Amino acid sequence: MTLTPYQQLEQEFRRLHAFRGALSLLRWDAAVMMPRGSADVRGEQLAALETEHHALLTTPKVARLLERAEAASSQLDDWPLANLREMRRQRDHAIATPPSLIARLAKATARAEVFWVEAKKANDFKILAPHLAEVVNLVRDKAALLGQARGLAPYDALVDGFTPGISTEDIETIFKALARKLPGLVNQAIAVQAERPAVPLVGKFSASRQRALCTEVLKTLGFPFDRGRLDESEHPFTEGVPGDIRVTTRFDTSDPFSGLLGAVHETGHAMYDLGLPVEWRDQPVGRDRGMALEESQSLLFEMNLCRSRSFVKYLRPLLEKILNVNGVEWTEENLYRHLTRVRRSLIRMDADELTYPAHVMLRYELEKKILDGALPIADIPEAWNANLEQRLGLRPSSDVDGCLQDIHWAVGYFGYFPSYALGAVVAGQLNEALRAARPALDEEIAAGHFEGVLDWLRENVHGVGARLPVKELIKHATGKPLTAAAYLRYLEAKYLEVT
Amino acid sequence: MTLTPYQQLEQEFRRLHAFRGALSLLRWDAAVMMPRGSADVRGEQLAALETEHHALLTTPKVARLLERAEAASSQLDDWPLANLREMRRQRDHAIATPPSLIARLAKATARAEVFWVEAKKANDFKILAPHLAEVVNLVRDKAALLGQARGLAPYDALVDGFTPGISTEDIETIFKALARKLPGLVNQAIAVQAERPAVPLVGKFSASRQRALCTEVLKTLGFPFDRGRLDESEHPFTEGVPGDIRVTTRFDTSDPFSGLLGAVHETGHAMYDLGLPVEWRDQPVGRDRGMALEESQSLLFEMNLCRSRSFVKYLRPLLEKILNVNGVEWTEENLYRHLTRVRRSLIRMDADELTYPAHVMLRYELEKKILDGALPIADIPEAWNANLEQRLGLRPSSDVDGCLQDIHWAVGYFGYFPSYALGAVVAGQLNEALRAARPALDEEIAAGHFEGVLDWLRENVHGVGARLPVKELIKHATGKPLTAAAYLRYLEAKYLEVT
Repeated sequence: MTLTPYQQLEQEFRRLHAFRGALSLLRWDAAVMMPRGSADVRGEQLAALETEHHALLTTPKVARLLERAEAASSQLDDWPLANLREMRRQRDHAIATPPSLIARLAKATARAEVFWVEAKKANDFKILAPHLAEVVNLVRDKAALLGQARGLAPYDALVDGFTPGISTEDIETIFKALARKLPGLVNQAIAVQAERPAVPLVGKFSASRQRALCTEVLKTLGFPFDRGRLDESEHPFTEGVPGDIRVTTRFDTSDPFSGLLGAVHETGHAMYDLGLPVEWRDQPVGRDRGMALEESQSLLFEMNLCRSRSFVKYLRPLLEKILNVNGVEWTEENLYRHLTRVRRSLIRMDADELTYPAHVMLRYELEKKILDGALPIADIPEAWNANLEQRLGLRPSSDVDGCLQDIHWAVGYFGYFPSYALGAVVAGQLNEALRAARPALDEEIAAGHFEGVLDWLRENVHGVGARLPVKELIKHATGKPLTAAAYLRYLEAKYLEVT
Repeated sequence: MTLTPYQQLEQEFRRLHAFRGALSLLRWDAAVMMPRGSADVRGEQLAALETEHHALLTTPKVARLLERAEAASSQLDDWPLANLREMRRQRDHAIATPPSLIARLAKATARAEVFWVEAKKANDFKILAPHLAEVVNLVRDKAALLGQARGLAPYDALVDGFTPGISTEDIETIFKALARKLPGLVNQAIAVQAERPAVPLVGKFSASRQRALCTEVLKTLGFPFDRGRLDESEHPFTEGVPGDIRVTTRFDTSDPFSGLLGAVHETGHAMYDLGLPVEWRDQPVGRDRGMALEESQSLLFEMNLCRSRSFVKYLRPLLEKILNVNGVEWTEENLYRHLTRVRRSLIRMDADELTYPAHVMLRYELEKKILDGALPIADIPEAWNANLEQRLGLRPSSDVDGCLQDIHWAVGYFGYFPSYALGAVVAGQLNEALRAARPALDEEIAAGHFEGVLDWLRENVHGVGARLPVKELIKHATGKPLTAAAYLRYLEAKYLEVT
């Protein structure tokens, strides 16, 4: 039996999927297991596999098969048709980013990363500046090429690369709504919380006990330890493929929650990957729907479901049993106050749910100006500090606490930051729909039952894979178009709660 | 500047080297880290990368470049010339084993492996027989194709695939010498040892203490923990590339030595890989010289250097300190008796240095007959039992203790067994040359100084890479042609020692 062009494409993309899985494992190992001195060797392996992946995706054979399959696409069902569309998207994306540009970008970002570390050590943005300028030039080229290929404005093309189907217009609409509402909300929340301060949680919480706690909680959340791992790394992350998914976290022995919530956050990513449609797992349509959706899943787990009174009800006995803690400060009420504490801060990674979007909007505003040349590289520190002061009333007194805190720009990630805040917005909207569908959700969570949550997510989000564009997917899952309304309702109810 | 055909080949093989490194990491992870349920996913990744590796090696481009480089080879120096020869060997080997055959062999061996496990459980060779027959048929095809391509007899072609440059004739000559001498030596050694029995080492030795002991010993042997790892797995093995080398072992809490000696054995492999010529590390000529040489290095470390009185002198205080042991049975003399105990056994993996070659010669004799059809599959159990009885005077009473004990044939490894015994012979010859070059070697070992050993090995063995054929390499390192003489002298001196 001869295969149709579409079926031949499925074979090609099956192979690409295996390559991506291998690349993911190489990255996981580099962050978790690899000996310190082996980075050069791993770099060569990653480059060789990435180059080959790119080459396999851009062969004339794939181009011919795509054309023939598209000519016969009226015979395809819903899923294969969406799969063909995603194949085309991946291939056009690869064609628009030629290996020579990728190689130059890889070199420039590798160098910039080194100088980013140096600049942080010396607390001096000027050390990074010339190398960042080089990266920005190359990212501009990439954005222009991608934009041409996809019929999008350059910055939109970068955003589309991380979250397909989201435009600057979508971002602006949502960010305007957030900017209008959040500053007042932050003020009110801080005032409310000042009247009910949290008793400090003092103690030393060993990594081994925290690890045991994480394992127990992740099992409750449904993490499959027979097809996944939990490890430790410098920063929490998720790697792997649906059949072998690996999350990491990091333990701070003076803080009982940061390691746990890092692991819960990553488990949100992992459960998304695990819930992707099994029969399409090695095809483009079987992948996640981009970074905003990914982030919505990690935030839904961490913020909406687990930084909640019902989750504290489930968690408190575990803390007592596994961390061996007791005392008046370990009441449900006091734990909940810790998990929902609002405080303006200079550092995005330390920010709470309510002040976090301000950090993202600052970066979004600046990175657009950096890319189109309106903000010269040398002026970034001052622009950063002024913007944060305007948004949160805080002014960094040094580059380390300002524009040097994130690695993203140095490694060429422009157009990525918006997905963090969009993820929170999507999570808020999904949370509202989930609670409408499962009125007893809080009782379920308090009892440690997440099966219903996972069923709902699989049916409405995970199982869709990449079959729908992101905005249609959200409409499909919640019955409503993507807006910030549900998210803002959620924040208001949570942080201005009358107890 | 345009690259010469030879330089272009170096680029191609650099990429292949990166692929092999990635494949090695995927295998390491599968055995050490991977969740139980993820084997199918890993299988797909390995198959995709192996297929691509094969495809890259067999492109018309590589063939053309080889021809052009060979036509201009008079301009190449020693090392590039040897590199070109090894490139040709790899490519001819790949061409002779077409992807369709590899795929069929992969399927047949995967199935046979499952039925090997079943057959062992049921203690019934008949369960494996039909699947082994299928594997044997395919291995015969492979041997014929390889033989044609390399101008060798089929079985010789398989041996050459594992240890380039060794022929059946070499094996026969050496095995004859062993068969002549060893049975008498075993008898005498057992009689000598009966007069000085070892006091049992009773106790429980926790895995964590044994791990600490291994780490300490491996550091002494020069294992670089900044570019390597020690982990645990079901069977000890070594994977990785010279810049990221990973050994494993397995701890038995009732046995203080098996885990340590497993790790020492693997460290012999690791030190070989680490000592390969750095400037050629991503080229064929920078690789090890095949399985017999690999095994010679692991056995040199385990048997010749560490199962010795001088090593026991170094080790005893460590045992006291780290394993926290004491008592009359922990004297140097008693420990040495444990490390050199000779006992005829049914199982190859349990065999000591002196009886081990008998197990290998049995398999060599049988596998040649299986391949040329002289020994029907159904008759293997009886032939095995009769052969062992003739060699060691022991007769297995079941298939599990007989022909089902090794996985090698089920997974298609014919022509591999001889390298175990050849490795021991080579180790014996290297050991003699090393001791002649370093008369104070025993004092060095007793003091925990292995720098001199490593210097000698790097200069005479490791640093040669694959520049010389194996027999020339041994001549280069020891000044003598490969024979069993030094090995037999070593065994006689060690096991018939007059104390």
